[in-house]
Amino acid sequence: MSVFTSDDFQMMSRAIALAKRGMYTTSPNPNVGCVIARDARVVGEGYHAKAGEPHAEVHAMRMAGEQAKGATAYVTLEPCSHYGRTPPCAEGLIKAGVSRVVCAMKDPNPQVAGRGIAMLEQAGIDVTVGLLEEEARALNPAFLKRMETGRPFVQLKLAASLDGQTALANGASQWITSPQARQDVQHYRAQASAILSTSQTVIADNASLNVRWHDLPDYVQAIYPQAQLRQPTRVILDRQHQLFADLKLYQQAGPIVTVSEQNADLCVGADEHGRLSLPDVFHRLANEHQLNHIWVEAGATLARSLLQAQLVDELIVYLAPKIMGSDGRGLLGALGLMDMKQVMQFSIRDIRQVGSDIRVVLAPQPLTNE
Amino acid sequence: MSVFTSDDFQMMSRAIALAKRGMYTTSPNPNVGCVIARDARVVGEGYHAKAGEPHAEVHAMRMAGEQAKGATAYVTLEPCSHYGRTPPCAEGLIKAGVSRVVCAMKDPNPQVAGRGIAMLEQAGIDVTVGLLEEEARALNPAFLKRMETGRPFVQLKLAASLDGQTALANGASQWITSPQARQDVQHYRAQASAILSTSQTVIADNASLNVRWHDLPDYVQAIYPQAQLRQPTRVILDRQHQLFADLKLYQQAGPIVTVSEQNADLCVGADEHGRLSLPDVFHRLANEHQLNHIWVEAGATLARSLLQAQLVDELIVYLAPKIMGSDGRGLLGALGLMDMKQVMQFSIRDIRQVGSDIRVVLAPQPLTNE
Repeated sequence: MSVFTSDDFQMMSRAIALAKRGMYTTSPNPNVGCVIARDARVVGEGYHAKAGEPHAEVHAMRMAGEQAKGATAYVTLEPCSHYGRTPPCAEGLIKAGVSRVVCAMKDPNPQVAGRGIAMLEQAGIDVTVGLLEEEARALNPAFLKRMETGRPFVQLKLAASLDGQTALANGASQWITSPQARQDVQHYRAQASAILSTSQTVIADNASLNVRWHDLPDYVQAIYPQAQLRQPTRVILDRQHQLFADLKLYQQAGPIVTVSEQNADLCVGADEHGRLSLPDVFHRLANEHQLNHIWVEAGATLARSLLQAQLVDELIVYLAPKIMGSDGRGLLGALGLMDMKQVMQFSIRDIRQVGSDIRVVLAPQPLTNE
Repeated sequence: MSVFTSDDFQMMSRAIALAKRGMYTTSPNPNVGCVIARDARVVGEGYHAKAGEPHAEVHAMRMAGEQAKGATAYVTLEPCSHYGRTPPCAEGLIKAGVSRVVCAMKDPNPQVAGRGIAMLEQAGIDVTVGLLEEEARALNPAFLKRMETGRPFVQLKLAASLDGQTALANGASQWITSPQARQDVQHYRAQASAILSTSQTVIADNASLNVRWHDLPDYVQAIYPQAQLRQPTRVILDRQHQLFADLKLYQQAGPIVTVSEQNADLCVGADEHGRLSLPDVFHRLANEHQLNHIWVEAGATLARSLLQAQLVDELIVYLAPKIMGSDGRGLLGALGLMDMKQVMQFSIRDIRQVGSDIRVVLAPQPLTNE
C-alpha cells in the first residue's frame, strides 16, 4: 500500500489539469500531463498536445533540464516503453536521472501495459502507481475503452421537443433547439475522434459535420486556439452510395471515411437484417482507424439501431421547452413495445440548462428480465 | 423613498421565513409572518397557520405583550382592516401601541387594499411599505393572482418518458416515474387549494387525489405535522356524470366539488365546442369557492385544452429517463401543427433531478405571430 504525501497529491492534480489542455487535439492518443518536482517545487511540466508531437514527459524534462536529476516525475499515465513516433519516455526519464516516478495509472495500451514501469524499476527508480487514478481515468474514457475492449466510446446525440418530437409531421424542424445548444454540440464534436452519420442525414441537411471554430462556445475558444483546430474524421454510413460530390461535406477540410458493403473506405458486411453490421463498423473503426471516441448525429433509424444493439456509451439529449404534438416525428420512431419491462432505461449523469434548452446526459442501462 | 436599516432587512427576512411555515395550511388565506422588535431585539413573532385561526400579527402581539409599546412591527403583508373571522389587525397594532409598522407589500385584497395602512397612519403610526416586496410576493403567488385577476393560479402536472410518451400503445404505464417523483407530486398537492381532474382519470386510475401524509417527502413531514394535515378540495370535471359512489375518491376525507352543466356542485355552461367552459370553471372556482391555487392532474385531452386556452401558469413535467417509442401515447396527443411557429413555447423556471427522474418547471410563453 503506497503512502502519498500532500505534495504528491498537489503535483498529480497539477499534472491532471495540464493533461486536460490536450482534450481537443490528442486523438487518437490519450491526454497526458506530467510535472517534475524537487522539494515540493515544480521544475518542469508539460502535456501531450497532438499525436506526433512530444509526449508530456518530454516537455517536462526539457523544461527541467539538469534539475530533473534526483527529482520526482508525476505522470497521469504510465510512461511509454515503445519506440513509436517518439522514443520511449521511460528511457528518457531514466536518462534524465529522476529518482522517483509516480503514475496515476498503468497504460492499458498492449504496447505498454506495465513495461514502462518495469523499465523504470529495472533502472533502480522508485515507482508508485495509483495516485488519483479515478481522476486520471476520467481524462481518457474513450482511449481507455478502446484499449481495454477494442471498441470505441460512442456518444449519441439527439434533440427533440419536450414531448419527444424531432420534427412536425410535414418534416418542419428549424429550429427546435437554441443557438447555444448548437454551440454545445460543436464542443462535443470538437472532443470526438470522429463524427458519424448516415448519407440520408448528410444529404437531407446538406450537413458539413465539421467543427466550426467560430461556433464553439467562448469558454472553448479561450483554451483552444483556432490555429490548433483539429477536424474529427467524418464517418458516413453510405450503404447505397448516395453521397455525391457537390455536398458541403466535401467542401470542408478533414478526413472522411465512407462505409458500405463494397466500394467504400471501410467495407463491412451486412447483418441478418441486410443492414450494415454496426458492431463490426465500430470494432473496425477502433482497430483499423484508431478512432477512440465517436460522436453520432443521425436520424431516428440509426439511433434506434445503435441503442437496441447496446452500442451507445452515452446519450446526450437536448430537449427544447416546446410541445409539438404527438403527430410529429418521434425521437426513435415506433418501437412496438407491449410491456413496460421492454422500455429502454437510462441513468442520468448530468442535467443542465443550455441556452433556453435542457441538456440531459444519460447512460443506457441493460434491460433487466425481472 | 424609504430608507431601511440592516436591522429592518433582518427582521423582515425573519418575518418572511415565519410566513413560510403556513405554506401547507393557510389556504384560502395568504401566508403572512410578523416580527415585533425593539432596539434590534425580537420581542414577539408569529405566522398565520390556518384560516379561522389568529393572524400573524395577533400571535406576535400576544408574545410581545407590554413590550409592543413603542416597538416596530414587521409584517409581510399589509395588516387587515376588516372584521372577518378575526378583528382587524391594524386596530390591534394601534391598541398594542407600536410606533412604527413596516410592511413588505400592500394587500391587494379589495377588502383591505390600503385601508389597513390608512388606519395605522391615522393613528399616528409611522408606516413604510415595500421592504423585500419581491420576496413577500413570492410567498403567495396564488393568493395574489386571485386577488389581482379574479382567477386562480393553475399548475399543470404531466409525466412522460424522455420521448414524451405517457403510456405504451396498449395503455401500460406503471410505473413511468420513480417513487421519489410521486412523493414530489404529493408535496405539490399539499400546497394547492384544490386538485383538479376529470371523471375519466379518476375512474381509470381509481384515484384518491388526496394528500397522503406518509407519502410526503421527509423534508415536508419535518415541517408539516400529520395532525395539521389539510386536504385540498378535489374538483372533478364530470360533464357526463360518470362518478359513482364506490370510487376511492369518496372514501377519503376532504371536500369534493363536481363540475358539470347541471346537477353538480358547480354548474358551468358549455363552450362553442360543447365542452365545459374552462375559463368559466376556473373563474368560478376562484370567486365562489375561494380557491387560489389549483393543481391539475389529468389526461392529455384536458392538458391540451388548458394549454391551448392559456389557462396554465406553470407546467411541471416529470420526465423518466426511458424511451418508450413514438407508437405510445403522446404527452398532449396530436396537435395537427403545420408550422414551427405554431409550436407551444415555454421558458424554463427550474430543472432538477428527483429520484431517478428529471423534473422541469416551465412557464408557458404566449404565441408570437412573427
